[in-house]
Amino acid sequence: MAPPSRLLPATLQILRRRCASRFSTASSIVSPPSKAVLYDEHGAPDQVLRVADVPPVHLGDRDVCVRMLAAPINPSDINRIEGVYPIRPPLPGAVGGCEGVGQVHALGPAVTAPLSPGDWVIPSPSSFGTWQTYIVKNESMWHKVRSDVPMEYAATVTVNPLTALRMLRDFVQLNPGDAIVQNGATSIVGQCVIQLAKVHGIHTINIIRDRPGSEEAKGKLKQLGADEVFTESQLDMKNLKSLLGALPEPALGFNCVGGNAASLVLKFLRQGGTMVTYGGMSKRPVTAPTSYFIFKDISMRGFWLQKWMNSDKAEDCRTMIDYLLGLVHEGKLKYEMESIPFSEFSLALEKALGKHGSQPKQVVRF
Amino acid sequence: MAPPSRLLPATLQILRRRCASRFSTASSIVSPPSKAVLYDEHGAPDQVLRVADVPPVHLGDRDVCVRMLAAPINPSDINRIEGVYPIRPPLPGAVGGCEGVGQVHALGPAVTAPLSPGDWVIPSPSSFGTWQTYIVKNESMWHKVRSDVPMEYAATVTVNPLTALRMLRDFVQLNPGDAIVQNGATSIVGQCVIQLAKVHGIHTINIIRDRPGSEEAKGKLKQLGADEVFTESQLDMKNLKSLLGALPEPALGFNCVGGNAASLVLKFLRQGGTMVTYGGMSKRPVTAPTSYFIFKDISMRGFWLQKWMNSDKAEDCRTMIDYLLGLVHEGKLKYEMESIPFSEFSLALEKALGKHGSQPKQVVRF
Repeated sequence: MAPPSRLLPATLQILRRRCASRFSTASSIVSPPSKAVLYDEHGAPDQVLRVADVPPVHLGDRDVCVRMLAAPINPSDINRIEGVYPIRPPLPGAVGGCEGVGQVHALGPAVTAPLSPGDWVIPSPSSFGTWQTYIVKNESMWHKVRSDVPMEYAATVTVNPLTALRMLRDFVQLNPGDAIVQNGATSIVGQCVIQLAKVHGIHTINIIRDRPGSEEAKGKLKQLGADEVFTESQLDMKNLKSLLGALPEPALGFNCVGGNAASLVLKFLRQGGTMVTYGGMSKRPVTAPTSYFIFKDISMRGFWLQKWMNSDKAEDCRTMIDYLLGLVHEGKLKYEMESIPFSEFSLALEKALGKHGSQPKQVVRF
Repeated sequence: MAPPSRLLPATLQILRRRCASRFSTASSIVSPPSKAVLYDEHGAPDQVLRVADVPPVHLGDRDVCVRMLAAPINPSDINRIEGVYPIRPPLPGAVGGCEGVGQVHALGPAVTAPLSPGDWVIPSPSSFGTWQTYIVKNESMWHKVRSDVPMEYAATVTVNPLTALRMLRDFVQLNPGDAIVQNGATSIVGQCVIQLAKVHGIHTINIIRDRPGSEEAKGKLKQLGADEVFTESQLDMKNLKSLLGALPEPALGFNCVGGNAASLVLKFLRQGGTMVTYGGMSKRPVTAPTSYFIFKDISMRGFWLQKWMNSDKAEDCRTMIDYLLGLVHEGKLKYEMESIPFSEFSLALEKALGKHGSQPKQVVRF
């Protein structure tokens, strides 16, 4: 990654134009100077990202200036920078990151939202540009959240836990005692699925990769509440249903891997079941025999949180975030993260890119 | 196929037991002796099928004896005989065939259905054992149909045309001006889809195999009302949407082939579209990249008429069959069939098994 630098004049002009066009009345309130991680072209994140100084911004009447506390590096952030994500911020001068938590620093003169300096807020729905120390956005973009949870959870509650919650609710009517099946169970979404299902009395059948430490991973997932955890190689057999024991056949399955791991989810599903794809970690497609559709009446769907948040669900979204942070507060929702100071952003990025082997979710503290 | 023979004593006993157990009061009305195409074990149809004499059956009070006029050889009939279909009649002594048309020959003394000798009836929902000259079943199993259409249409109206109609109605709300896309468009279901869509002002984009005579096949489908017909090789390009011209992107697609032909249907679909699989002629699975589910919000479903008919839709089924035969009568629904006398059943079977190259649907006349 390029070293911290002052903004190039061209980028500066663009940022100024954007700021100027965002509000009609310029107040005399000005944000502090900010540092941002940004990129001017798509490419490998460790090649195109750089830390730059961003000049102060005049707050519009209804703008809120937030001092960011923490923001994660999500896979979708990487994909946006690489240019392979369908929704991307305009270039040049795009600031990375899409979710995070901050503290209200200053309010425009006409802000009506019940916000005070010091309140914790998150961008909701999540939006571009959370990898910076100060952000100025219209009050409607911010959602006040409780501040009695670790800031890393407030910073990451939207992209992963909300995906898990929506997928459990949006596709199949589940009742206590039902079961679901998922692959990629060690991912944060996977861990959230296990815990959120447990809260509602839903059993989970979990599939993980074969790798060194898979026994330890099984133990961790069971501690979170997983009913069954299998490695893919354990499922290399004909009659998967015999492994269910007293668990009912699942009506719902989640796939974030593709390839063989997706086929295993399909094999577990009961007649008329639904598999929801929300990721493709193996980069392999999803394949199903014709008979699954015709005789087993399987449905295959997809879930993309971004699309859901851009629908008319923004209010729902905030209610659910409050619910999820409540569970965090009660100790019913937890997942592993690594908190790393902003000064070490390059290291956090390398870890997020997998250059140091398997690592927990990286959360940058500002 | 084995030559016509008298029933083996064991099979005879079984048939007698089945008949005896089917009704409570034996009337004095007896069916004529019948000839049936039956099998005692699963296997290659030309190995295990044989024509046999079936002895007369006493009609139960509410039984109707029907003299069969015509019955098709459908692929699902072949699969039942091979033992690879999920629902199969019990062995030994299973009579082949699942749909067909016949004429009422005699009525049990307590039949209340408005049926008279000479009326045309079809088994509805379709059921086992239509490859025989006389059939005795409870009155509730028979649906009276109009007799002013060619008997081949009455004999084949359920399995293929009804599949086409249900698939157009059950998955996506289509309005006049919308478009659908399908592969296997030269199949009878495919031809019915084109014509039924046209009746409702729906455009069709059709995909067919590359083969000698594909230009002629295109011409035939366009005469039926197809808007566009492409061979698979014509679609070996990046931007399929450029081929749509003024047609809207389809929200619904039908797949009866699998493999590449299924992928082409998916490529044509619009954001949020649904692909319904109802067959797998290529014996290749359906494969889709993860991004189709997540970013394109594609749904994949399946359709199996048998399941639909066994739900609470039997009455709907009859209404729709009347509608379809009405369209046949008006000349709005037609497809190619070959009518062949029962005495040449072996030849019809060979043709249905593809042993004489590509052949129209074989319909046996009794």
